[in-house]
Amino acid sequence: MRLGVCYYPEQWPREQWASDARRMRELGIRLVRIAEFAWARMEPTPGQFEWAWLDDAIATLAAEGLKVVLGTPTAAPPAWLVQQHPDVLPVDAHGRTKAFGSRRHYCFSSEAFHAASERIVTAMAQRYGQHPAVVAWQTDNEYGCHDTVLSYSPAALAGFRRWLAQRYGSIHALNAAWGTAFWSLQANSFDDIGFPVGQPTGALPTHALDFRRFASDEVLRYNRMQVRVLREHAPGRDVLHNFMGMFGEFDHHAMGADLDVAAWDNYPLGFTDTAPFISEADRLSWARTGHPDISAFHHDLYRGICKGRWWVMEQQAGPVNWAHWNAMPLPGMVRTWTWEAFAHGAEVVSYFRWRQLPYAQEQMHSGLHTPDDVRDLGGEEAAQVARELAALPDDAVLASATAPVALVFDYSAKWMTDIVPQGADMSYFGQVFGAYSALRQLGLDVDLVGPDAPLDAYRMVVVTGLTHLTPALSARLQALSAVVVLGPRTGSKTEHLGLSSQRAGAAPLGSAMHLPITAVDSMRPGLQLPVVGVSGDELGQPLGHGHQWRDLAQLPADSAARVLARYEDGYPAWVQQGRWFRQCGMVDAPLQARWFTEAARLADLPVVNLPAGLRLRRRGDWLFAVHRGPDHVQVPAPAGTSFVLGDARIGPAQVAMWHAP
Amino acid sequence: MRLGVCYYPEQWPREQWASDARRMRELGIRLVRIAEFAWARMEPTPGQFEWAWLDDAIATLAAEGLKVVLGTPTAAPPAWLVQQHPDVLPVDAHGRTKAFGSRRHYCFSSEAFHAASERIVTAMAQRYGQHPAVVAWQTDNEYGCHDTVLSYSPAALAGFRRWLAQRYGSIHALNAAWGTAFWSLQANSFDDIGFPVGQPTGALPTHALDFRRFASDEVLRYNRMQVRVLREHAPGRDVLHNFMGMFGEFDHHAMGADLDVAAWDNYPLGFTDTAPFISEADRLSWARTGHPDISAFHHDLYRGICKGRWWVMEQQAGPVNWAHWNAMPLPGMVRTWTWEAFAHGAEVVSYFRWRQLPYAQEQMHSGLHTPDDVRDLGGEEAAQVARELAALPDDAVLASATAPVALVFDYSAKWMTDIVPQGADMSYFGQVFGAYSALRQLGLDVDLVGPDAPLDAYRMVVVTGLTHLTPALSARLQALSAVVVLGPRTGSKTEHLGLSSQRAGAAPLGSAMHLPITAVDSMRPGLQLPVVGVSGDELGQPLGHGHQWRDLAQLPADSAARVLARYEDGYPAWVQQGRWFRQCGMVDAPLQARWFTEAARLADLPVVNLPAGLRLRRRGDWLFAVHRGPDHVQVPAPAGTSFVLGDARIGPAQVAMWHAP
Amino acid sequence: MRLGVCYYPEQWPREQWASDARRMRELGIRLVRIAEFAWARMEPTPGQFEWAWLDDAIATLAAEGLKVVLGTPTAAPPAWLVQQHPDVLPVDAHGRTKAFGSRRHYCFSSEAFHAASERIVTAMAQRYGQHPAVVAWQTDNEYGCHDTVLSYSPAALAGFRRWLAQRYGSIHALNAAWGTAFWSLQANSFDDIGFPVGQPTGALPTHALDFRRFASDEVLRYNRMQVRVLREHAPGRDVLHNFMGMFGEFDHHAMGADLDVAAWDNYPLGFTDTAPFISEADRLSWARTGHPDISAFHHDLYRGICKGRWWVMEQQAGPVNWAHWNAMPLPGMVRTWTWEAFAHGAEVVSYFRWRQLPYAQEQMHSGLHTPDDVRDLGGEEAAQVARELAALPDDAVLASATAPVALVFDYSAKWMTDIVPQGADMSYFGQVFGAYSALRQLGLDVDLVGPDAPLDAYRMVVVTGLTHLTPALSARLQALSAVVVLGPRTGSKTEHLGLSSQRAGAAPLGSAMHLPITAVDSMRPGLQLPVVGVSGDELGQPLGHGHQWRDLAQLPADSAARVLARYEDGYPAWVQQGRWFRQCGMVDAPLQARWFTEAARLADLPVVNLPAGLRLRRRGDWLFAVHRGPDHVQVPAPAGTSFVLGDARIGPAQVAMWHAP
Ligand SMILES: [Zn+2]
Ligand SMILES: [Zn+2]
Ligand SMILES: [Zn+2]
Repeated sequence: MRLGVCYYPEQWPREQWASDARRMRELGIRLVRIAEFAWARMEPTPGQFEWAWLDDAIATLAAEGLKVVLGTPTAAPPAWLVQQHPDVLPVDAHGRTKAFGSRRHYCFSSEAFHAASERIVTAMAQRYGQHPAVVAWQTDNEYGCHDTVLSYSPAALAGFRRWLAQRYGSIHALNAAWGTAFWSLQANSFDDIGFPVGQPTGALPTHALDFRRFASDEVLRYNRMQVRVLREHAPGRDVLHNFMGMFGEFDHHAMGADLDVAAWDNYPLGFTDTAPFISEADRLSWARTGHPDISAFHHDLYRGICKGRWWVMEQQAGPVNWAHWNAMPLPGMVRTWTWEAFAHGAEVVSYFRWRQLPYAQEQMHSGLHTPDDVRDLGGEEAAQVARELAALPDDAVLASATAPVALVFDYSAKWMTDIVPQGADMSYFGQVFGAYSALRQLGLDVDLVGPDAPLDAYRMVVVTGLTHLTPALSARLQALSAVVVLGPRTGSKTEHLGLSSQRAGAAPLGSAMHLPITAVDSMRPGLQLPVVGVSGDELGQPLGHGHQWRDLAQLPADSAARVLARYEDGYPAWVQQGRWFRQCGMVDAPLQARWFTEAARLADLPVVNLPAGLRLRRRGDWLFAVHRGPDHVQVPAPAGTSFVLGDARIGPAQVAMWHAP
Repeated sequence: MRLGVCYYPEQWPREQWASDARRMRELGIRLVRIAEFAWARMEPTPGQFEWAWLDDAIATLAAEGLKVVLGTPTAAPPAWLVQQHPDVLPVDAHGRTKAFGSRRHYCFSSEAFHAASERIVTAMAQRYGQHPAVVAWQTDNEYGCHDTVLSYSPAALAGFRRWLAQRYGSIHALNAAWGTAFWSLQANSFDDIGFPVGQPTGALPTHALDFRRFASDEVLRYNRMQVRVLREHAPGRDVLHNFMGMFGEFDHHAMGADLDVAAWDNYPLGFTDTAPFISEADRLSWARTGHPDISAFHHDLYRGICKGRWWVMEQQAGPVNWAHWNAMPLPGMVRTWTWEAFAHGAEVVSYFRWRQLPYAQEQMHSGLHTPDDVRDLGGEEAAQVARELAALPDDAVLASATAPVALVFDYSAKWMTDIVPQGADMSYFGQVFGAYSALRQLGLDVDLVGPDAPLDAYRMVVVTGLTHLTPALSARLQALSAVVVLGPRTGSKTEHLGLSSQRAGAAPLGSAMHLPITAVDSMRPGLQLPVVGVSGDELGQPLGHGHQWRDLAQLPADSAARVLARYEDGYPAWVQQGRWFRQCGMVDAPLQARWFTEAARLADLPVVNLPAGLRLRRRGDWLFAVHRGPDHVQVPAPAGTSFVLGDARIGPAQVAMWHAP
Repeated sequence: MRLGVCYYPEQWPREQWASDARRMRELGIRLVRIAEFAWARMEPTPGQFEWAWLDDAIATLAAEGLKVVLGTPTAAPPAWLVQQHPDVLPVDAHGRTKAFGSRRHYCFSSEAFHAASERIVTAMAQRYGQHPAVVAWQTDNEYGCHDTVLSYSPAALAGFRRWLAQRYGSIHALNAAWGTAFWSLQANSFDDIGFPVGQPTGALPTHALDFRRFASDEVLRYNRMQVRVLREHAPGRDVLHNFMGMFGEFDHHAMGADLDVAAWDNYPLGFTDTAPFISEADRLSWARTGHPDISAFHHDLYRGICKGRWWVMEQQAGPVNWAHWNAMPLPGMVRTWTWEAFAHGAEVVSYFRWRQLPYAQEQMHSGLHTPDDVRDLGGEEAAQVARELAALPDDAVLASATAPVALVFDYSAKWMTDIVPQGADMSYFGQVFGAYSALRQLGLDVDLVGPDAPLDAYRMVVVTGLTHLTPALSARLQALSAVVVLGPRTGSKTEHLGLSSQRAGAAPLGSAMHLPITAVDSMRPGLQLPVVGVSGDELGQPLGHGHQWRDLAQLPADSAARVLARYEDGYPAWVQQGRWFRQCGMVDAPLQARWFTEAARLADLPVVNLPAGLRLRRRGDWLFAVHRGPDHVQVPAPAGTSFVLGDARIGPAQVAMWHAP
């Protein structure tokens, strides 16, 4: 559990560096990320490198005992590269070439860009790969930020056609997989294939999906090139990428296989302000704290990307500049966000940035210090965390942050849902986040795991919105003894984004949970229908209501399943078959909590009903409580507990930590 | 009154065809539409045709006694045509060429497309034109769907200039008609004329209108080519087109003159979800039934296109895929929609589609059967209709579905209103639909008639929002003895979309209804003003309120007209002169009902105040009641009536039919 | 105080001109603006001029004693110019060339357009420059209307690079000023610079700001060419431009230095309907009167452009056609708007237009007469004003309309706020308008003054949202003895749109008001926090609430300032240091009124709390009351006052004027 900071020496006078380094050490910083975005400083003209400044910067940091994370600067291609190779620039969905002048102005399919990137990354890695202070490398910066995964350039089109030829072997196979019998869309050769945009109405879903897969693969191919160079010249160093929150345009699990550490950039207020699946009411309630689950969701997601190793590479340290509104965090939140990350297992929390820059695009993005070099609120809270870390008992939280509940997350399910939403407010991120939040509200710790992750260690597995349930995952679920909750849309699509057989719902699970879905019911906001009980006093009585989405299920006569709740019009809403539960649609929060409670009970997992804004997280023998709500609350610790952090009663923006073996 | 179905044999294994055909017959289907969209199957490479599969498909259907409607496949130009002739592709208003990859990717002005279309239509018609099972032909599919009437291609520009040269003869005449004295817009030759888009601010209204007229004429020209080929090679067969709902970008009345039957595609839930003039409250109330008037409005509109002959070519049979939200219809609605169409005079109701396709763009569009070939809810309800049809008394509803009230509908009024709305929420469709709905709520049967239709048979004629009142229509209205209600904006524009003399309101009617309109008052949502009575107890008392729009009228001293209600500030609101009424603005629903009731009384037409969701329709000696409301209601049948369908009391999604001579 | 009218003889039959001129005189018109937009009539083919019609038109007007304002017609380049020089057309931000067919279809950087403009303006000026009836010239029409200041043409790009080279001298200086150390954005030559649009994310703020400055300068350069020609050939005549309301894309103060008179076009209902900073509630409340401050704000702004000389060139005379909704003005408002302009010091109020044109884009834009040539409501009210003007006592309102309160307005502050808003609803126009409205509600007269205007005559100076406070203005403020109120964001940016030192708040003011701003807090709608008192009974008690924006201030230990109110969390909200006040954030209206009242008291300015819709304006010894509210109100005149206009009690849309020395 170390603290880090993001630092851009090229933006400050050299005479300030030594003081900066000294004060970093004094504040408790151990790791400093530098060099990302500094391409034009390292290679001011093609092929001619200037290392002196960077040599100095690293030496200055190392002199204070600080470790360095070097970022490759490829997110900021210099002007000369664009002048030399205009085809480096990406092209938008309307065919307009994007312009030089901000960042990420490159097309992942541009071979000129690959070549130039390999040259600068090789040169950096040759020079600093074995530097003792350089302990880790970050490739590029936030792949995909600003909608930059998809490019519609000639190079991308040629690459897409090659990718399709390789995937399908023959145009006949492509026609079969895409279903081009519809609307006379038969392709006679791969050269008939264009981009899935600009048609009078939507393109073939499989066409669109394959383009998303291709684009994701292009990001992986590009990153793999950088990783290969770094592994060759910087052996033994951690290679990581700093992923961005709420971003799913490429397959993070696939990229994670190439990396040592999954880092991510944690801006809780910005995400709360802009995440499309957060309600306006929640944006207001949590404007100064971040939604109680928005950071933790990502912590638990990124922990699953690289076998448990993960960092927060950029931690919001004050107001940011890029959301619609950029509120001041509630005093205490910078500290609390930091501890929350450690509670979920972060190895490093690195603040963005050492000092606010008084010019350029991020001039309103605060850091640990004001532009005038005064320690800002965030800096004070970071220093407090450093002191608290130093004071921790020796045995505190060495354990990994595994959880008893797994929630499956699959990037291709996001693409499929985007392409065939069927209801204008359907969102895969939103659906999984909703399930996550409901579980966390019950005090349950959750691992967000990829579709190929091992599941044996879990007592309960939740799979929701996972449009395509692979035979492999289906088989692994059937081999478990865990309680499994299957949510709406799960298993509804084939690998090619067609309908599953019998719109199968749980059908790919064979007889384990035999509940065919014959149709779906997509409901506009405000349209709802009661869910009613089926037995005892609850027979016909409303338990809550469904909205937004229903899988319309038909329990076959020979089914071993049992309907536990129905919609008012008779369709099953909540079904159990042994250790399997099937939830057929979206429901209101109390009913969702009730159903997850039923599943948790069967899994022998205790649940609580946490007050608004309070969240718990166990790490080994230690328990953390993190609070965002407006009121003071009691944490669920036995009387007499002695607290390492906080107290039995904590207020807004406070945290507590205690030993709970 | 026959049932049909839309079927795509090319999308299913040949071994399934015979079973499909047999079960169609068994379900009660009599007509099957096939071949639309199958161009690439019929002509896989340019000029080389494959008929074997289609021969088989037709034979398989014919073997079960089914009749075939053949669709020309031109809505789906194959990849090879686009590769050969890229100018087939349409161009959008921003100058971007639309892409191959969905459907309707053609420009009506492309001569290459005309040539290729004529070739495939001729080849089909030569082969099947006299086939005994092929009883009708559908040209193309849903002209204009996905915003495809207007194309901004070089061919369209050349065509537009030719069209203008022909219309105006000289550039001088064009300058005069367009009013180019304004803003120095004088054209010196037809080559100075461009598209009416992309200007810093709006183009000349007449420029915009002429482009809409030209674009409509291009659709007519293209369709006429197909009709000519079909009439030559398929003599005696019905030629029809399947129009789409809520679509007015070309003149359907003009196209109707070229056809035998006007077919239309009835998707009540999709229209209710997306029609811009339906309120959010109504979208919710009728999410599972469709707005009570949305289907009937189109039935009554399309009945007026081809002298009374009309079909429903595609009938929604379950949830669709293309609205923002796609709810499940209330059980019973598929049956009820079908009977509603027959009540309004449909010859055929043909369901879309036989079986849901488990892939491609419409994979979530249900049909009579699930993709696994199980009869779905819609299939069950269609079968019920088939049984009910078979059980009808012999004399049931042979009569045509004419009505005592005519409501004039004119496509060019839509274009004029779009171009010069004056209030951001003004919509010609919305205005006419509002009048229609108010009349239907009073139990009145309505014919939507074109501006050239004979009016002698009607007791009451409503003309609202008809911006340009032609001298011909004006003369015909004056020659009637019917009660005439003139609504806001009527007669306000000249043929060239300038202001009528005296912004004439009823001025083109001369002394028949002499009420000059001097200005208009367009009101944002929420802005309203009381309408007050003018005599007796009602003098100065509020009768309701006006909103959205007012024609500001001035009753001349010499007028024979009488103001029956005024706005609070004195302007006339509701004026009568003999058998003429003039309504000056939009008013709330109860006041609208009151005024239509006054007019109906003068026309000696009885009215009722129907409960929410109930509608009545007479066809000859038979009365139908169709109910969508949430409550059970009593239908207005005398005690002791024996019902052919339903009962004296019907619930949601139910229908009743009884003899009422 | 004279009345004028806008007239387009080229749009009407010549035989109508004499009658029009006579009736203008009879109605009380003294000035007639003609010829703007008539380029194609004056120069139907390149270089060949037709003056006969214009000679006649001027003579006809002059024969009735009317004076003429000649508009140069350059806002309407003819078709032949565009055909000859397609590069005349402007290019939008997406790179699409805008089309001929409306108006303002020219790029300010097109040299072909400069040449053609100079030719037509020279020809006009040579012919009419010394005509005795032609007393003033208007350049072009509403520069910038329809978003036409910014053009992205090749000529604009070349011009922008030249402008940058001139401004910065070296690319090194540009790199330093723009902060290109960020994101490797170093330019190696001016040819590396493109437009600040189309990047994956925002361009450098200084890049964007310089492009705005360049674009403003291009407008100035173009206008200066016209002014130079006119001064040469039309000596002694007033040269003016008719600015548009709510428009700030170029620097009006800079243009004013080249003109004799600032004219503006006053459409109160259109602005109220469309101004982005007016709330929906206010749009409804004032739909028929215009917001009580929308016209006056512009009157007071444009009075500051040309040393106090200003006209209303186009006065709304009835419903317009270009807002979203276009309501009828409340009867009386045309008169009231006219008197309000005179109350604020207008020399001329000129109605738009003499007669409504029954065709073309503005066919629904009313005038003083209907298209049928009947005097409309607006015409009647104009005639009443003419009669009232004639009846005024001789000494009435010769004095200038100066005010005791100055509110600083700076166009570059608008650009800076647009570029770096930090909160999605931040608007410089909105912020200054809010302050203006609060001051006016207190009965205070306000001058809107440019940042270089003399301030010595004011008792109170308000500076709000002025992002960059120049050293010159700072020094001048410090040299005053007036009370100064500094509002949020003031002084927060450098000349290059970086952060001021210490995010200085009042820091550029040195010790005069020493209150460093360390960060800002941008709040979404609905997020608010109480403002509390700091002493006496009010200690800790809520005084109101803050919302939308806070500058987070830290009072240094050595500060001489005193916090008069705080936010609940302790940050200063309202601070006083001697004659200086600093307001740290946006607050609710009552609290804003309280604070302005405190400042006004210190400035010894009496305030009142005016009822809704009532506004007062002093001009010399005369007081005007203008009322828009729904109720009758008492004006603050001593008992026994004799009124020149109106009475002691006035109703909606009424005005009063009385002597109040
Ligand atoms: Zn970042
Ligand atoms: Zn269709
Ligand atoms: Zn104007």
